[in-house]
Amino acid sequence: MTASGTFITFEGIDGSGKSTQARRLADTLRAEGHDVVLTREPGGSAGAEEIRKLVLEGDPDRWSAETEILLFTAARRDHLERTILPALTKGQVVICDRFADSTRMYQGLSRGDLRTVVDQLHSLMIGREPDLTILIDMDPDTGLNRALARQGSEERFEDFGPELQRQMRAGFLALADEYSDRFQIVDGARDMDSIAADVHAITLKALALKALA
Amino acid sequence: MTASGTFITFEGIDGSGKSTQARRLADTLRAEGHDVVLTREPGGSAGAEEIRKLVLEGDPDRWSAETEILLFTAARRDHLERTILPALTKGQVVICDRFADSTRMYQGLSRGDLRTVVDQLHSLMIGREPDLTILIDMDPDTGLNRALARQGSEERFEDFGPELQRQMRAGFLALADEYSDRFQIVDGARDMDSIAADVHAITLKALALKALA
Repeated sequence: MTASGTFITFEGIDGSGKSTQARRLADTLRAEGHDVVLTREPGGSAGAEEIRKLVLEGDPDRWSAETEILLFTAARRDHLERTILPALTKGQVVICDRFADSTRMYQGLSRGDLRTVVDQLHSLMIGREPDLTILIDMDPDTGLNRALARQGSEERFEDFGPELQRQMRAGFLALADEYSDRFQIVDGARDMDSIAADVHAITLKALALKALA
Repeated sequence: MTASGTFITFEGIDGSGKSTQARRLADTLRAEGHDVVLTREPGGSAGAEEIRKLVLEGDPDRWSAETEILLFTAARRDHLERTILPALTKGQVVICDRFADSTRMYQGLSRGDLRTVVDQLHSLMIGREPDLTILIDMDPDTGLNRALARQGSEERFEDFGPELQRQMRAGFLALADEYSDRFQIVDGARDMDSIAADVHAITLKALALKALA
């Protein structure tokens, strides 16, 4: 399959507003006449959603980090084959809320040696990187408060205290530096319309560059 | 974890009698005072059994070969971590009905280029090979008839016609040649007691060698 569409991913800590911005971008591009597929990970295809359930439901300790990475990679492979690549082949714009960078960041953060495993699995079984990755960057305290407000309960966020959120932000910024050719950092600590305007401008530039290529 | 026990796997085409021989060997060794764990793949641990269901239930085409290999590798990693390695660490004899060689044979048979993917995933995420692999070898027609008799229906075996069975037999024999240091071939076209006696003798020799090592 040759992929002539444009593959855009959103990354950022919980509460950064990336899912909202992904939806807004999809709506704006559609209004402009673009053919858009909005999807998300983990999940994004029937099989991947089943694997997502298997990973996320039940006792959090029931899978080791390594088994979890294999399951997420299986879900990503299915998502890629069934949703992302077919859409790109048709020339559509694919907007995906989280992709491989989230796995790199979360697994690398939990155990440094896992980053190598994640990268080797990615290069063996996935291969495809986004054309553009938009990182909605923000101060972790702001992100945490937004996530808590949305969640309506503090309990599930016990593990996501301010210190871990700071590490996650630093992890994403490090990835943006490592993959500087495709990452664009957007300041998420502003009103939603300003963020959406920046995201839109960055995307139009990427679509224009892709059209020239 | 250091592994001081002995890891024995059984391989062979459907109907070769390998599951029966695995059980008989476990019974015989237990009667001789050995501490034995009898397990099987796909499955063999709570998590791996859930993944097994996800792979084997539903439409056979719902997973691509690559996604299926990732799911089987995830199941094997869980089985290894939760069942096999803890038993080996305690010095137990682990007898497993099918292991990585089955994946090598089946996936390699369905598409030649997959063998490389299987091997790379194995070396990255599993690593462990058995100390001894017993291949119950037999004429495919005999194996097919036994499998059909057990199944009680020919329908599910439509894809497993004589020609494919012959290819599977050849695939296992090629693996036995490739991994000649750990493979032992037992002629499965005889009465069960004769086969069991051979399997037992081979195993006692392997246990003695392991004790000397």
